[in-house]
Amino acid sequence: MQTVSQLFNIQYPIVQGGMIWCSGWRLAAAVSNGGGLGLIGSGSMNPDLLLEHVRKCKTATNNPFGVNIPLLFGHAESFLQICVDEKVPVVFTSAGNPMKYTAHLKSHGIKVAHVVANTRGAVKCAEADVDAVVAEGFEAGGHNGKEETTTMVLIPTIRQAIDLPVIAAGGIATGRGMLAAMALGANGVQIGSRFVASNESSAHPLFKQRVAEASEGDTKLMMKKLVAVRLLRNPFAEKVEAMELEGASREALAELLGRGRAGKGMFEGDMEEGELEIGQASGIISEVKPAAEIIREIVAEYETARKELKELTP
Amino acid sequence: MQTVSQLFNIQYPIVQGGMIWCSGWRLAAAVSNGGGLGLIGSGSMNPDLLLEHVRKCKTATNNPFGVNIPLLFGHAESFLQICVDEKVPVVFTSAGNPMKYTAHLKSHGIKVAHVVANTRGAVKCAEADVDAVVAEGFEAGGHNGKEETTTMVLIPTIRQAIDLPVIAAGGIATGRGMLAAMALGANGVQIGSRFVASNESSAHPLFKQRVAEASEGDTKLMMKKLVAVRLLRNPFAEKVEAMELEGASREALAELLGRGRAGKGMFEGDMEEGELEIGQASGIISEVKPAAEIIREIVAEYETARKELKELTP
Repeated sequence: MQTVSQLFNIQYPIVQGGMIWCSGWRLAAAVSNGGGLGLIGSGSMNPDLLLEHVRKCKTATNNPFGVNIPLLFGHAESFLQICVDEKVPVVFTSAGNPMKYTAHLKSHGIKVAHVVANTRGAVKCAEADVDAVVAEGFEAGGHNGKEETTTMVLIPTIRQAIDLPVIAAGGIATGRGMLAAMALGANGVQIGSRFVASNESSAHPLFKQRVAEASEGDTKLMMKKLVAVRLLRNPFAEKVEAMELEGASREALAELLGRGRAGKGMFEGDMEEGELEIGQASGIISEVKPAAEIIREIVAEYETARKELKELTP
Repeated sequence: MQTVSQLFNIQYPIVQGGMIWCSGWRLAAAVSNGGGLGLIGSGSMNPDLLLEHVRKCKTATNNPFGVNIPLLFGHAESFLQICVDEKVPVVFTSAGNPMKYTAHLKSHGIKVAHVVANTRGAVKCAEADVDAVVAEGFEAGGHNGKEETTTMVLIPTIRQAIDLPVIAAGGIATGRGMLAAMALGANGVQIGSRFVASNESSAHPLFKQRVAEASEGDTKLMMKKLVAVRLLRNPFAEKVEAMELEGASREALAELLGRGRAGKGMFEGDMEEGELEIGQASGIISEVKPAAEIIREIVAEYETARKELKELTP
């Protein structure tokens, strides 16, 4: 099996998660220049904007980068076409069926990874012949699976179920977290929240600050009747929580959510009424810093922690 | 800082979780004889029964063992007295305030660990001067915390917050899981579900079989309005799930639960109407085997996986 570094032609098997509102060309290029794989998160873009970001990313880095495309979104087909036309080397697909576009993308020389939150999805990825699977645990930010399986359990079960590179996601923000994921059998990691709180992320400065200040217990997986999403505690999230305790219907939740709340919060900086998507790893993050420095720190901590792991039977 | 092995005077820093209905003297002694620390789970016992189990455990092993005592249970004070009178070397307390009894137990030479599910609880443990903290993540079976923090995130945050040995629990059933926990900064592990499916556990054979057969996604954290508990999917759990989707009250859930359901399921073998407490790690477990063999396999896999962890920058 190819390593994740070989597969994507990168220095470290560290992928920056493609996140709505937070990961445009600046972040993707900074991560790719830092030795990881940067992803442009297309979920909050229209086709013109994605095209602009892809082109800017190409001028900002000579290293491979990718685009994350949620397949259930209306613009998915246009996004895929842009990636083909612009010769984007890597596409991460999510929220949809990997059978639909994988062969098409691969026929254009694009490496394809698909994001799943359960073992069933991983098996489907293998059938679709993707190049790698992102296995995302319950602790991850943003949209999430119904099974609520955590990274600790998801990685070994998916590792056992398929014979493809597995990229662990959810709860990973440090070198120790990466080492734990590799110990569980992952071949690489996808890191989201840690890069939200980077200089180059397009998150609003107030949101970056909230992420850096967040403590353990400050996020919650909510709106499970609609689409499960992990949110940072704020007045909006508390409203959702109160409604859910009363058994609010899918329709009532959709009405409360309305449209555009994620952008309002994460991009425009409304910390009260915005939808603030972030992972549990926000509890481990305490400082906004450059993406390349984040990667250097993760790699250094990984190596130190690896050497510290002692024998059980000395 | 003492290692967990030094602290408890055991060969491997592997603790068998003290679980209601599943961990009597046979399992505790088998684990302690196998080089780990076996715990008698007192939560489903009365004082006479606990005394009997403690005495039988002492004759069945010459190695240290312990008793897990949920402090909020009615018999807690009698249980603590039994541990003092019988010179039980180790007590794990849970579900209550560690300030209350730690000094008393330590004055009798007993080593004390306390189980927490959040960082706040860990800091309280340090104030109470316990000997070690068990940090139990969202993926663990049975009763669980409100914060829903997973092992992947809980271990590093607690590691950073306190200067005491941290024993990781939740989602750990294999040597790779143990290695991941140690990579995150834990000093040892507490393993529950894996030992439920052991020859020596007092779980009903039908429950052991269900645990071995369970797949990823087969458990769920439920009854959060009452006391959050992770259950294996069965007709009873499905009833709870349906009621919770409708916003059922604490009272309605308590009425549905009634009394004695845990014993009915896990001990008497009613797989339909019993309350089947088990962790997400049940998805990784596929065979019932002797406790000592489980420990040998965990240690061997840990060592193999440790050696396989590669440098990121070769």
